[in-house]
Formats: sequence, structure tokens, C-alpha cells
Amino acid sequence: MARLVIRNCSVLVVPAEGECRVDEYQDIVIEDGVIDEVMPAGALAPAVDIEELDATGLIAVPGLVNSHTHSPMVMMRGAAEDVSIDDWFNRKIWPMEMNLTAERVKVGARLACAEMLLAGVTTFVDHYFHADQIAAAALETGIRADLAPTFFSSTGTDGREAAYEAARQVRALGESAARNGLPRITASLGPHATYTVSEEDLVRTAGVAQAEGFRIHLHAAETADQTQASMDRLGATPIQVLDRTNVLEAGALIAHGCGITDADLPILAKHAARTTVAACPKIYLKLAMGTTTPVRQLWSAGISVGVGTDGAAVHNTLDVWESLRLLALTQKQREQDAEWMTISDTLRLATRGGAAAAGMPDELGAIEPGRRADIALVDLSGPHCRPLHDPRAALVYSVRASDVVTVVVDGNIVVKDRKLTSADLDEILTDASDLAHTLVDLSRGGAVQHYAP
Amino acid sequence: MARLVIRNCSVLVVPAEGECRVDEYQDIVIEDGVIDEVMPAGALAPAVDIEELDATGLIAVPGLVNSHTHSPMVMMRGAAEDVSIDDWFNRKIWPMEMNLTAERVKVGARLACAEMLLAGVTTFVDHYFHADQIAAAALETGIRADLAPTFFSSTGTDGREAAYEAARQVRALGESAARNGLPRITASLGPHATYTVSEEDLVRTAGVAQAEGFRIHLHAAETADQTQASMDRLGATPIQVLDRTNVLEAGALIAHGCGITDADLPILAKHAARTTVAACPKIYLKLAMGTTTPVRQLWSAGISVGVGTDGAAVHNTLDVWESLRLLALTQKQREQDAEWMTISDTLRLATRGGAAAAGMPDELGAIEPGRRADIALVDLSGPHCRPLHDPRAALVYSVRASDVVTVVVDGNIVVKDRKLTSADLDEILTDASDLAHTLVDLSRGGAVQHYAP
Repeated sequence: MARLVIRNCSVLVVPAEGECRVDEYQDIVIEDGVIDEVMPAGALAPAVDIEELDATGLIAVPGLVNSHTHSPMVMMRGAAEDVSIDDWFNRKIWPMEMNLTAERVKVGARLACAEMLLAGVTTFVDHYFHADQIAAAALETGIRADLAPTFFSSTGTDGREAAYEAARQVRALGESAARNGLPRITASLGPHATYTVSEEDLVRTAGVAQAEGFRIHLHAAETADQTQASMDRLGATPIQVLDRTNVLEAGALIAHGCGITDADLPILAKHAARTTVAACPKIYLKLAMGTTTPVRQLWSAGISVGVGTDGAAVHNTLDVWESLRLLALTQKQREQDAEWMTISDTLRLATRGGAAAAGMPDELGAIEPGRRADIALVDLSGPHCRPLHDPRAALVYSVRASDVVTVVVDGNIVVKDRKLTSADLDEILTDASDLAHTLVDLSRGGAVQHYAP
Repeated sequence: MARLVIRNCSVLVVPAEGECRVDEYQDIVIEDGVIDEVMPAGALAPAVDIEELDATGLIAVPGLVNSHTHSPMVMMRGAAEDVSIDDWFNRKIWPMEMNLTAERVKVGARLACAEMLLAGVTTFVDHYFHADQIAAAALETGIRADLAPTFFSSTGTDGREAAYEAARQVRALGESAARNGLPRITASLGPHATYTVSEEDLVRTAGVAQAEGFRIHLHAAETADQTQASMDRLGATPIQVLDRTNVLEAGALIAHGCGITDADLPILAKHAARTTVAACPKIYLKLAMGTTTPVRQLWSAGISVGVGTDGAAVHNTLDVWESLRLLALTQKQREQDAEWMTISDTLRLATRGGAAAAGMPDELGAIEPGRRADIALVDLSGPHCRPLHDPRAALVYSVRASDVVTVVVDGNIVVKDRKLTSADLDEILTDASDLAHTLVDLSRGGAVQHYAP
């Protein structure tokens, strides 16, 4: 049995409700990847079979969850700037994605995993092509991931069935590599969106999901305009479409949901136990979408919300600290209420909400006995965090991803003293630089899909 | 004559108009604090009297300018969270400021200078009490600063005259420490705001400013509500008040200006050559102000705009990278135009716009011969910036303050290899921690001012 004790840290305690708090001078005892105990520092005697990690002066935070991303898109980071959402899809990204190959996706996914782990992101919830390559990168680097192989209806039966099969393979791979009962790599089904996948295909997907125990991760109700277009075209809001195609019944992770209406809320509430919405606030600003996810309304309906980065081709980073800060700021703005989206609620959303987005609400998202040992140790001693009147405020409003010192996933140390220990970062960066030009080449023409939501 | 050459860097070229570009493999030759030449790397032969700084792999960026802040308020960082703007002033900050002493301001200012320098901020434009203490901290740490001693009309003639005198003393201190013609520490007059300083006192201040060659730095038109309140109370918008009190004629740095109306623009345009507006977007979101600075409209009227952090008691950091990113994001949102506030415009605003805010539009803000050598050397090799399709996009949307490696102000190296070389950071942090509790003590009651704009 592998035992690890994190010695002498502060611990961010994120309860299911109410104020977060920080307990000082704690030891976290981990057995076989699971948190066994959180106890006052020094109460556990040293022993030869226990690995020790000195965390004096650091705060242990539940590993952050990137609740919605397309990780290999780091390869297009900075290559589609200052463009409208239409041009972003139709003139930049979807033509660029004609260049995808298994190798390029793998190189991008490895870079993404490295970036996230170094920033204290211990789980990412992904939606992309060549998911087997992303799974391999996640297994190698030690991060936790739920992967949804993307498909459009435009790629026909073959494309759809291949995506289902990819999900099955990712799941099998995750299960074969699992320890202590819970696979580190899981799979969801990944229809792209309600505007790119037909209702028939959504019904089929919900059927497969229910028969085989998958969740469904997709884009829906991204903007109010999209909701209106859905009503014009299908006579139903995107959420109503998800309801009548049984996607909600199967269990859905809905990316964005900025166009969710008040009338949608009772529909979502019926499926609250298996529905999560992922908010990615930086992209709503950058693409001038004029909106953001209605977190207050979703919470009122009992729906979990996580925070994500979306792909770095628009978000430019996979930094969940940046995302949670922007979430807090833009939610205050949205509700015109500076007392709303408190630091405690923000931290809860980024941890427990993320755990729900990853399909593991009871296994991740808090530093508590029985949960998986996914932990970021953060240094709040820099001048930008000092003096430290409130470490919770520092985590939401001052901290930088570079303040993450050490990261544990599933009980394994994958980042130590700000260095990735599970993979060769120099090699990852070199591979990415070498291949970067191939991803942004628009000379072959065409596009994987046309954006007209 | 002191000579420094920064060897083999990329250089961010920020022209007065049009696209920014990056020139690779450059040497920057500095003489007595002034940029003498920017030339292809290696063209200048080594010499015994030239100090060399190897910047291989780094990009040289004009030092960022924090265009509006209250630097010592770092001492209240994280102590006033999740409150309305009224409570922030009346229940938190202004009561806390009853605790200000010269020593506490000095400790806070030293911490602020350290935080900013380490993040590549080479100039800050400040508005606070005990400005002599802030000047001392700036002189010690090597940062450039323009300091406006704050006053309210509520403190009467004595308070006002003392603030003018403080500005004179700061200016004299800066001049006595100056090298090569341009003082590193300058002073402005600092009436707090159009809602806390009477028109009579603004007229007096404008008179002093014009007689003695000061600019005036103050808060005005912070929100649309404030503009309406001004019209109700005084029959004029805050900008009209600044006009009829001669403040605009004297030359003004206007903090925020979110409530500037279209009718105000021609008034500002008349004084465009000596007017700058400082935008601090993080606080507009955090305080749920429902607005932001109308940059597009101000630029159309020929008005310079800089970006700032405001005080860390609401902004939580003095990180101008964060501010310029939020500026770009919120400006796109404000104008509902993702093609607006491009990466080039954002970088120009943060550098040349900042130089105007500091009152040195021709001396700072660009890496060009004849300008002051205020330069940040930034490392874009981290995984969050890679692959590097566009270094300009990385600077706006990916970079972290922790990517700043070396900082030069006025030709002096003040940060090297991410360490502050001009002052003892450990001592600064310890002093701040030791005194932090004294600043947030509300037991003595009272407040420096009441907020009712």
C-alpha cells in the first residue's frame, strides 16, 4: 500500500455550503491515492513506509478542474486574434482543424497536460478529436481526465459510430490502467452541439449513453442568439432539445449555457442530479458575446456549475485560476451585485462544481477523507499576496498559476518545486514548437464544419 | 557616463499608430539612463566600460505603467471582500484609513514598489496620503513615480495647503535626486474627486497647478450614476465641472471616467494634449459598477488612455498585465466587437498611454532612441505561452507577471533573474506582515471621509 503524508500545510476547507475556511498546520495522510485523514501537523509519527512531503508555508487546495476544454487546441494559441466569432470558426479554427492528425493531437495534448498540471489543474474535461491520443497524454503525465470524442452529424453514421467507439476505447484504457477502483481516465460521449448534431443523432447518442453508462458532454445554448435560432429552426430552445432527445435524462455536461432561459430552468431542475454547466468566462468577453453563464439562476434550480477555459485557441491559456477569477468578476457584473459570487462560492464552484463536471462529485473537489488525493500546494508568500489578511481572497483575486509549487494527482506527485516530474517538459515544448506551423496552415482549404448556429 | 547594453533580445516595437511588431535578435544600448540605439545583435563590440546584460530568449517590452493607483493600500489587500461600493468606502476603507501613519504608508509603499517592479511595472502614478513616504520608497526601490498628495475639502484650508506643500516637497526631492535632466520622481496635485472637493477648491487647485507647473490627478465621472448626481447637485457633469474650474486647462489625469458622456467629449477634446484618462477594469467588475471606461469614444476625441490597477484594497494586485488583459476583454465586450481593442492597441495603451498618464508622453512608453530606458525583459518560453504563433498575443492574453525576468528603470537594473536587486524583499514582506493588523483595525471609529457621490 502506497502512503504519502503532506506535512504541515494549511488546508483550504470547501464545505458543500457556507463559508470556506483555512485550517492551519495540518498533515494530509494519503493511502493508495485516497485521502485517509486530515489531522493536526505532527500527530502522525514518521514511519519507513510513508513518503513525506514537507509543505511548510504552503496552502493545500483541492486540485482545480478545467470543466470544459479542447486541450490539443493549445497548438493554435495566439493564431486567431481579434476576430468575430463567425470568423473565428469559419475562417480560422475549423479550417485549421483540417490539419489534425493523431500525432499533432498527441503533441498538443501533452503540452496542455503539462501546462495544466504546473498550474494546479488536476482534472480536465475534454471534448476533441483523436481522444485516444489525449488519453495517452493524460496517462503519461499523470493528470485526471474525462474525454469526449467529438462528432458532427455532417460526418455521417461512420463519424458518429467512430466517436462512440473511441469513447469505449478510452474508457477501456482508463479502466485497464486504474488503481484502487476509480479510473483516472474516463470517457463521455461528445456530440458537438445542438446546432451541429441532428435531433435524431442526439436521440441515438442518448440511447448509447444510457445503455452503456456514459454521460454526454456537448455545447448548448451558448448565446441568447443561439437559443433564438434554435427556437426559429426547431421550435424549441437548445435545453428543450436536450430534454426531448433524452440527453438530459442520460446525464449532460453543458458547455457555456449563456443562452439558458428562465423557462429552461424547471427542465434542467428535473435532471439536476446529473446535469452540470461549464462556464468559460474569458471567451465570452474575448468573443464579445455580450453574455455569460447564468450561475445564480442555475444554482437556484439546483444545477451544478463548474468553470473551464474552453480551448486555448480563444482562451489563450488553460489557467483555471484566471478562469475562476474572471467568473467571480463577471458574475458580480452580470448580477450588478458586488456581494454576490463570494470568494467562498467561487472556490466551491471551481472545486466541487468541477468535480461534478468531471462526473465525480463525491470523489473529487474537496480535501476530505475518502476523496481522491488531487491536491495543489500553493505558495501565498509572494509580494502580490501580502499581507495575507484572507488567504481565500488571495486564492480568488491575487494568486498566479506560477504560485503552484507541488501537485498531487491520485496520490502521485506529478509536479514538485514547480517542475513537472512525470514527463519531460523540454521535449514537450520542442515537439510543440516543431509542429506548430502545421496546425495553422490554411493552404489545403476546406473546413471540418461550417458555423451557422 | 554609465553604459549598459541589453544583448540579443527580441524587442516589442510599439509605434504611435498601427500594428505593433517584434524585432528579433536586437541589442539595446543605453547611456546614462537613456536609450541610445536599438541595433542588430552583435553589431556593438564589447568594451570594458559597458555593462552587459544577456537577454537571449527574452522579449524586451517598454516598462508597464500603472496609470492610477494608491500604492500603500496593498496593506488592506483582501480585507474588504464581497461588499457593495458604498460599504467598501464607508464601512471598510475610509474607516481603515483612520489608521494611516507615515510609517505604515512607507511600509505599504515599499511592498507596492517591490510587487510592481517584479511584475515589470516601471512607473506608477499614485494618489495617496503621506506622499513623501511613497517618494522615499520609490527612490529606494528604483521605480519611477508621479505622486499626487490626496486631499478632501472636508479637511479645510489646512488640509488643502498641506497637500500642495507635500507636492512641492515631493517634486523638490525628485529634482534633487535626478540624473540626466529628467527626475524619476515627480508630483501632481491630488484633489480627491469632483464629489469630495468643492468647486472653489478645484479652482484654487487649478490656479496653483498653472502657477507652479503641476498637473492635476483626480477621480471624476467614475460611473454614470455619479455623472447624474453631479448634474442634479451642480447642474453640470463632472467633466463640465473640471472645465469650468480650469482643471482641464491646467492638465488633468482623470481616474476611471466611466461616466463620461458623449456631450463631454468635445470639452475633453479641447484639452486633448494635456488630458489622460486612466482605466482600471478589474475594479469596475469587482464592484459591479456595470460600466467601464469609454476608450473608443475617448480615442475618437483624441484623448490618451492608460491602464491602472487602482488600489489593491479592491483590485487585490498591482499587476498591470492583468489590468491590460481585462481592459482588452472588457472593451471588446463593451463595444460588442471582438475585432476592436486589438492586441496592438492594447499594448500601445499600456505603454504609450501609460507614458501620457505619467505626464511623460515623449520620454517613456517605447523602446526608441532618446526615450528613458524603462524596460521589462519577459520570458515567453513557458508552456502557457507555447507554441508562440504571435508574441504580441502572448503578451496580452497568456503572459503572467511571473514571466518578467529582468527589469531596467532609468538604465538601472532593479530586478534581475526574478529577484529584486534594489531592496531587501524579505524585510519588506516582514515589515508588511508585522503592521498589517494595524491598518484594518476598526476599533477607533470614524472615517477619513463619507462616500455619497
